[in-house]
Amino acid sequence: MTDRARHVIASCRHIAAMTEEPGRISRRFLTPPVREVHSYLRQSMADLGMDVCVDAVGNLRGLWKPAHRGRRRLMMGSHIDTVPDAGAFDGVLGVILALEWVRLAQEIAFPTAIEVIAFSEEEGVRFGVPFIGSRAVAGRLDPSLLRLKDAEGVSVDEAIRQFGLDPMKVPEAAIEPEDAAFVEIHIEQGPVLEAENRSVAVVTGIVGQTRLSLEFIGHANHAGTTPMHLRCDALAATAEWIAVVEAFARRTDGLVATVGKITVEPNAGNVIPGRVRVSLDVRHIRDSERNSAADELISKAGAIAERRGLTFEYSRLMNEPAVSMDEQLTAYLAEAVEAAGYPLKEMPSGAGHDAMVMAMRMPTAMLFLRSPGGVSHHPDENVLEEDVEAALQVGRRFLERFAADQARTNSSPR
Amino acid sequence: MTDRARHVIASCRHIAAMTEEPGRISRRFLTPPVREVHSYLRQSMADLGMDVCVDAVGNLRGLWKPAHRGRRRLMMGSHIDTVPDAGAFDGVLGVILALEWVRLAQEIAFPTAIEVIAFSEEEGVRFGVPFIGSRAVAGRLDPSLLRLKDAEGVSVDEAIRQFGLDPMKVPEAAIEPEDAAFVEIHIEQGPVLEAENRSVAVVTGIVGQTRLSLEFIGHANHAGTTPMHLRCDALAATAEWIAVVEAFARRTDGLVATVGKITVEPNAGNVIPGRVRVSLDVRHIRDSERNSAADELISKAGAIAERRGLTFEYSRLMNEPAVSMDEQLTAYLAEAVEAAGYPLKEMPSGAGHDAMVMAMRMPTAMLFLRSPGGVSHHPDENVLEEDVEAALQVGRRFLERFAADQARTNSSPR
Repeated sequence: MTDRARHVIASCRHIAAMTEEPGRISRRFLTPPVREVHSYLRQSMADLGMDVCVDAVGNLRGLWKPAHRGRRRLMMGSHIDTVPDAGAFDGVLGVILALEWVRLAQEIAFPTAIEVIAFSEEEGVRFGVPFIGSRAVAGRLDPSLLRLKDAEGVSVDEAIRQFGLDPMKVPEAAIEPEDAAFVEIHIEQGPVLEAENRSVAVVTGIVGQTRLSLEFIGHANHAGTTPMHLRCDALAATAEWIAVVEAFARRTDGLVATVGKITVEPNAGNVIPGRVRVSLDVRHIRDSERNSAADELISKAGAIAERRGLTFEYSRLMNEPAVSMDEQLTAYLAEAVEAAGYPLKEMPSGAGHDAMVMAMRMPTAMLFLRSPGGVSHHPDENVLEEDVEAALQVGRRFLERFAADQARTNSSPR
Repeated sequence: MTDRARHVIASCRHIAAMTEEPGRISRRFLTPPVREVHSYLRQSMADLGMDVCVDAVGNLRGLWKPAHRGRRRLMMGSHIDTVPDAGAFDGVLGVILALEWVRLAQEIAFPTAIEVIAFSEEEGVRFGVPFIGSRAVAGRLDPSLLRLKDAEGVSVDEAIRQFGLDPMKVPEAAIEPEDAAFVEIHIEQGPVLEAENRSVAVVTGIVGQTRLSLEFIGHANHAGTTPMHLRCDALAATAEWIAVVEAFARRTDGLVATVGKITVEPNAGNVIPGRVRVSLDVRHIRDSERNSAADELISKAGAIAERRGLTFEYSRLMNEPAVSMDEQLTAYLAEAVEAAGYPLKEMPSGAGHDAMVMAMRMPTAMLFLRSPGGVSHHPDENVLEEDVEAALQVGRRFLERFAADQARTNSSPR
């Protein structure tokens, strides 16, 4: 499999050159380099004997049908759009590996159709809303999203037309209500597998996410003339709370809590901060744990503000529940990992993925590959050849397991 | 004195209407409303029989000479420029009260000349450098400062010409090396007198000031995919340190330490902060105390960064020593406060003032008036009538004491 692993990495690097900005990888939804990616993938799909089409939101879809088609369709894929100044593997790796899994399927006379989708939009960069590609496939694209405009004032609807597609046909992108399953392969985008020296992990679910905006309101005063005991320093209060957030998350298994954004007023070296607004991002695979953590951290902020004589306000910006992967499909993937000779590592995904949207529509599973350095959304983003090889080995075992299951269910009386 | 106190406040409010921006008090160095202030003050000075001139940096200077002139000149004054969106009393009050002290001097047949200066520039708003007015009078104006440019590209030199003055004559603004003393009256700009329910305080000195820029450098990572134990969060480290700064300053008598400015990169809610740059402002009336506090807080920052696996850098932006007020002149002021029936409160000034510059050239003393709410540099800045009256009562006793001293030194054999 080593040659194939090298080919996968080379393909990702080749696609990385298809960019809006020479020297940097940036490929937003339906921009010109997407056509180049389509052209490249279309050829790869054709070489595998797949039927290829582009749906109305720009997803490139390749369908391989075996001679004797089983009941359940296996769908695979990931996205081909990128963040600005991206790496070569976030998204694209999942598409290329899916095509290699099709090759493996052909080698074992896989009994059922495989559809590989290169989702057109996942990052939310161009229109501020993510998952446009998978939402359309899952039949979950709110038509109002088509009126969103990008920084140049072009709407999603217009972008679709400019790409030569017909936005009226978006509903046709939704998959038929047939028996199907979805598998996504993606880089971890985090440091866990590297820290534990593992190649792959089976994803148990996508964590739920709470985003809050909190504001501590004290009194802006002169940094020289206001003694410490007469201050109402909004930044000192915020700092005390940030330490509480960190300590709380550290002692709560599986919880991540991040204060990533801070705005201080007046933000001058010689003025005691009067107002501080901070973000809080809380994620956990169990919604009850996440909700109680958010409540607890809000309550701590209120208590710190009160003790210091400050005012405190907050608002919830996001409250997305966790999404579980399908138990049976995930079990197949776990079996495949062990059958391929790798230790089984199961973990939640801390980030959203197309698999999260697809899971609303069909049984879904997800495989992570180690991210060297935990780096992602950065030109240094990478993947190891041995880990790509692991994903191929796992793929062969998974496809065998999936095929066996199809043979059983197809032959069993219904 | 109640009528006179009311008149002082009314004069300050009248001058407040002379502004660059209707509806807000903003009066930068040598802008058009400064002419209106000069015209108003010139009339007040003339009414007191003073000789009036404007020196080459725009300081309005009124000189009252008694019939039998004593040896030592008493100089008084404060500034007439303001910060943007200012209050009515910062600076201006000290000029108007100085003129009332001249009136009091005339009533007690004060034996020596009094020069009242309305300094043209103290806040540093227009050219980014403060004390241009008092530096010129003290003979401490570095000629290179004349080349500084404002936001419109106008240099100090050009601004002086545009105001109808001659920058070549700046050296003539410096006072002759004669026997003189300087007294400034100013609002406290802090909450101490209000908290202790006092009208006035005698200033012991201007605190020294250290300004630092510190940077904590960690790793920006995905807020969802990076577990707590694998983070290198620059904001969490900074927060820990801000708490240390606050606790250290609280337990160190007379020290103020402020983190007023913070810059976070990338400053996004879903990204762990990779870099945080903060300001630190440390002030104390004793230089040794200030320097050791700054060293200690730098050392703590380094230790926190090291324990957390971050890099830490810092630079010193300012290191100004404390300036003491003159012991004898300050003692006269203290005696005057008690003779006028007010409890004596002595305190350092946490902010810079023209008195700080004048102290480089001659014995200097300073009197603070309570700032209601501790508010300054804000439209709500205020002063109480009873406190202005206190300043007038103290003035009469101070002038009597100063006169008695002149009589003694003039009559004693030298």
